Amino acid sequence: MDFSGARIIITGGLGFIGSNLAVRLVEAGADVTLVDSLIPEYGGNLWNIEPIKERVRVNISDVRDEHSMKYLIQGQDYLFNLAGQTSHIDSMNNPYPDLEINAKAQLSILEACRKHNPSVKLVFASTRQLYGAPQYLPVDEKHPLAPVDVNGINKMAGEWYHLVYNNVYGIRSSVLRLTNTYGPGMRVKDARQTFLGVWIRNIITGEPLLVFGDGRQIRDFNYVDDVVEAMLLTAFSEEADGEIFNLGADDPINLKDAATLLVDVAGRGESRVVPFPADRKAIDIGDYYADYRKIRAKLSWTPKTGLREGFAKTLQFYEQNGRHYWGDRHE
Amino acid sequence: MDFSGARIIITGGLGFIGSNLAVRLVEAGADVTLVDSLIPEYGGNLWNIEPIKERVRVNISDVRDEHSMKYLIQGQDYLFNLAGQTSHIDSMNNPYPDLEINAKAQLSILEACRKHNPSVKLVFASTRQLYGAPQYLPVDEKHPLAPVDVNGINKMAGEWYHLVYNNVYGIRSSVLRLTNTYGPGMRVKDARQTFLGVWIRNIITGEPLLVFGDGRQIRDFNYVDDVVEAMLLTAFSEEADGEIFNLGADDPINLKDAATLLVDVAGRGESRVVPFPADRKAIDIGDYYADYRKIRAKLSWTPKTGLREGFAKTLQFYEQNGRHYWGDRHE
Repeated sequence: MDFSGARIIITGGLGFIGSNLAVRLVEAGADVTLVDSLIPEYGGNLWNIEPIKERVRVNISDVRDEHSMKYLIQGQDYLFNLAGQTSHIDSMNNPYPDLEINAKAQLSILEACRKHNPSVKLVFASTRQLYGAPQYLPVDEKHPLAPVDVNGINKMAGEWYHLVYNNVYGIRSSVLRLTNTYGPGMRVKDARQTFLGVWIRNIITGEPLLVFGDGRQIRDFNYVDDVVEAMLLTAFSEEADGEIFNLGADDPINLKDAATLLVDVAGRGESRVVPFPADRKAIDIGDYYADYRKIRAKLSWTPKTGLREGFAKTLQFYEQNGRHYWGDRHE
Repeated sequence: MDFSGARIIITGGLGFIGSNLAVRLVEAGADVTLVDSLIPEYGGNLWNIEPIKERVRVNISDVRDEHSMKYLIQGQDYLFNLAGQTSHIDSMNNPYPDLEINAKAQLSILEACRKHNPSVKLVFASTRQLYGAPQYLPVDEKHPLAPVDVNGINKMAGEWYHLVYNNVYGIRSSVLRLTNTYGPGMRVKDARQTFLGVWIRNIITGEPLLVFGDGRQIRDFNYVDDVVEAMLLTAFSEEADGEIFNLGADDPINLKDAATLLVDVAGRGESRVVPFPADRKAIDIGDYYADYRKIRAKLSWTPKTGLREGFAKTLQFYEQNGRHYWGDRHE
């Protein structure tokens, strides 16, 4: 994979995964533009690009801003389409911003590509949330889609716009259905991105880790570097055009054990199993872990970082950088 | 089923299926409000309710008008949610109105129910288009969803909002995935609703019926009275809450044979097999016919009107009423 000199735009580029991807691409010699709205409730944080801030173009705009996107997209070789509203609870409390960002803005990005840059290659960050409560495990890409909340529905629409524009117009698009991603740069201020962020913060600030339900819900976790690698492979491979790939891990774990492992790695902290808050219970999906054999077979991707190593790296990052993430303002 | 005195609102109520449903409900003694935007490119036509025009309330407004919907929905016992943008080609040429109508407006209707009338029962008119090109035949409700155009994606979102609001908030909703519906009141001015409308018109105006491709694509057809019956059964049955049902028929037929049958029933006309227009070819789904055993088993629904009888009734209607449907204005 040679991204040297490639013109690359990343929506959600100041967010967790987008910024890690940006670092990797800048190091590979790419010409990188980051688009981010820096809406405080979402994932963007300028500190995420501190190591590369002199070597990327940052454009503060919202993917709902059609005109901005139309302009920025022109002349780009790759579009990593990562901007999204990620909070399931927020999507239920007020479904409209989720619809505008996760569905409508995706359509307008694709329309902009169709009209102004039909040769761009897109990688869309989708989510396991589309599968809803698994009908079997592990969940492969053929598993029926049955989202359990508004966020899952809108992400489903956003994903399928990419596939239809690939199939009908030849706008090359690949879809990655991400599972729980964690690592440096993740949102830790609250659970809007993942509960794991709050756990990490609580370890460091000395608060207990709350595990909802009975703690036996199984999940799989990917360290962010592995997800970045999957995105690059997907972008680079023609074989990935028009395809959907699950990401996943070899070490699914239940939430109680994950909390215990995190405490163990940190050498401090405590976890508590508490009842589900009603609003979360209503959209809980039970156990989930992915079958990721398709991307392994087609693109030779496998996750390299196990939970213990990933937790250690993540804890270390937030011990050093925490104040840039759980303060009230973006620094 | 007793709908006598029931307060009923039908979105898309001046459209093809909505108006047939209205006639049936008015005859059953229901208190019926029809909501329709009468956008000329869509299905609404005041002539559709000529026989009952003194016995229904007609409210001209668009489902995208949140305020109108919020007001109208209050105090209703049943909401038959039939308003939609149905043209696949239009959804590709300009995807935004399709998104606003088929997805966003559905969300705002459900939000209105949640806030102002949580005890209403909804029946949502969805479409076989969500399945895309069938992976097996006949297609049952477990078939993966893989829409091939923007219209299918947005209808998928609209459908799932209903299911999530049922599951999370207890807003009782049922989904019917309709296949090709035909009969009196269908749009015949163009193929925005179904190609069959254009065929019917062409028979009467003496133009040839055009069959795209090789004419071997199999379809199933439901006469509108059968679809109305399915909607009433679904509305009335608690067992249908939160469920998705396919409609279908026992006499699937390929398009060439359907055209020949129509010519035979009419006693005039001719059909021609012509190449697919490029824009239609790109979103064609190949053969389709539904497995409707679920609704037969749960709600005892079966289609009663065969193609020959249905075609004859439809032709008769348009011979007598055609001028109200293919003129330039709504009468």
